[in-house]
Amino acid sequence: MELVERLLKGDKRAAARLITMVENNDPAVIAMLSEIYKYTGKAEVIGITGPPGSGKSTLTDKLTKLLRKQNKKVGIIAVDPTSPFTGGSILGDRIRMSDLNTDPGVFIRSMGTRGHLGGLALATLGAVKILDAYGLDYIFIETVGVGQSEVDIVKAADTVLMVMVPGLGDDIQAIKAGIMEIGDVFAINKADREGADRTKTEIEMMLDFNEGDWRPPVKKVVAIHNEGVETLLESIQRHRTYLEDTGELIERRSKNSEREILDLAQHSLMKKMVGTEEDKYEIKVFAEKVAKRKMDPYTISNEIVEKITNKKD
Amino acid sequence: MELVERLLKGDKRAAARLITMVENNDPAVIAMLSEIYKYTGKAEVIGITGPPGSGKSTLTDKLTKLLRKQNKKVGIIAVDPTSPFTGGSILGDRIRMSDLNTDPGVFIRSMGTRGHLGGLALATLGAVKILDAYGLDYIFIETVGVGQSEVDIVKAADTVLMVMVPGLGDDIQAIKAGIMEIGDVFAINKADREGADRTKTEIEMMLDFNEGDWRPPVKKVVAIHNEGVETLLESIQRHRTYLEDTGELIERRSKNSEREILDLAQHSLMKKMVGTEEDKYEIKVFAEKVAKRKMDPYTISNEIVEKITNKKD
Repeated sequence: MELVERLLKGDKRAAARLITMVENNDPAVIAMLSEIYKYTGKAEVIGITGPPGSGKSTLTDKLTKLLRKQNKKVGIIAVDPTSPFTGGSILGDRIRMSDLNTDPGVFIRSMGTRGHLGGLALATLGAVKILDAYGLDYIFIETVGVGQSEVDIVKAADTVLMVMVPGLGDDIQAIKAGIMEIGDVFAINKADREGADRTKTEIEMMLDFNEGDWRPPVKKVVAIHNEGVETLLESIQRHRTYLEDTGELIERRSKNSEREILDLAQHSLMKKMVGTEEDKYEIKVFAEKVAKRKMDPYTISNEIVEKITNKKD
Repeated sequence: MELVERLLKGDKRAAARLITMVENNDPAVIAMLSEIYKYTGKAEVIGITGPPGSGKSTLTDKLTKLLRKQNKKVGIIAVDPTSPFTGGSILGDRIRMSDLNTDPGVFIRSMGTRGHLGGLALATLGAVKILDAYGLDYIFIETVGVGQSEVDIVKAADTVLMVMVPGLGDDIQAIKAGIMEIGDVFAINKADREGADRTKTEIEMMLDFNEGDWRPPVKKVVAIHNEGVETLLESIQRHRTYLEDTGELIERRSKNSEREILDLAQHSLMKKMVGTEEDKYEIKVFAEKVAKRKMDPYTISNEIVEKITNKKD
């Protein structure tokens, strides 16, 4: 495939076009990703998440600038959970806003939910592979991190940076509790605000429950003034060294691959179930009967599964 | 099945035991749920969600007490997203805390994530059916509503009550944007706090984008002082009347059934993929090869899907 050849030679436009194909669920995509897979695995993939308003984008930009000074090529994938209700998007202006946009050593891309069946995670992983094969040294996956799906996406990274802010308040302790366990490195951004030390103490206390060998460092930063960003990057790079030295990198990537294999399989089985308009209509008719209590959902789902596994169609 | 007979006669302990079977993924569960399905559909199912700290539990308790005065039997299912990291749980003490616990006309149950493959939603829907067949008039499904999975659970209700609080701040506008579209009725709890009117205005403004025939009412309440709860319940009941009068109830339940059928099918296909220890081991071995770039995930997932759909095993 010509696009793949161009990608492997470092053609930025080829990378962008291949990611678009992934986003659009182009039928040729699986073969393409399968082909380039052997050229991947070199980039360091860093997931960045945290509550809305924690300044993830600014921090990502500063980290990127620092890496550029080290002559590293960097990709930023901003995962963008659009709302079907407001039509708005949280990270929508991500690309326009960043002054990194003109740097040829930086690749920025927004990925949006398109109502795919679990497709955003797969699409994001596909984009990461394309950028990896394209030859980037670092790839950031930035998500808003309020939902399970975003957590799932960010978990696919080698290193997860959790961005917190002072004074989140007790009300969202619960959110923290739900997502904190995935952090390998913690940043308390906007640390010039009141309560930064208290937040640090709270996070450290939660981390005391952590039983792994790696103790996630908690770093105070003020991204907008570029304060503490260098130390934070060192922590991220130290985590990478740790992963490599202990063999945990392969272990972690194995676990992530396991999840990806099953997600891909599930996705393709889903397509077999509701891939055509006919399938969709049939299920709609069944569902109405279920709603009216003329059939039950268990019997019908059984039939669907049997149909697929017997390849009757 | 003896338990089912007892359930249909209104035996509370039978209901509790059947829900435990659902939670434990007991192999007999599907046949049981399939059997009782025709006795369901009578209860009004109300999903209650909103950010942590918005006072959902208190509000649910007050609504329940009001319904009890109307001689209605009420079930409360608190969906409880435990954290694997802290071991803690948000709604864990839900049952112990409620003084409704001694009322024989009230059934309270916590459902926790158990690391099932998407099993929490299915287990919750199973529990709803059991309580419906048991003969309850109203069933509340209460979730913390920070994640997609909780949103999915709550969407399975006939009516969704979104609980907000004043002064959530701009930072979590995003959370609101992501989940607000599912609300049929909005409560602004703790409305004696500063900013309640501003929050109401903000919500009303977002609702202006809503294109449906039903305009979700936004009600100020102070659950802890029982203020506004009666009016709120009237709004909930008016939504029910609306659903019935317009035929939307069947439409909505059809959509929910569609999702449930596909979830059930997906769940059972997943079991075919990783149901046995052998399957799991095999995928682990493959995943390690993928992590080492000796194989690619696309080819492997294809093989797994083919194996399942050809029933080679």
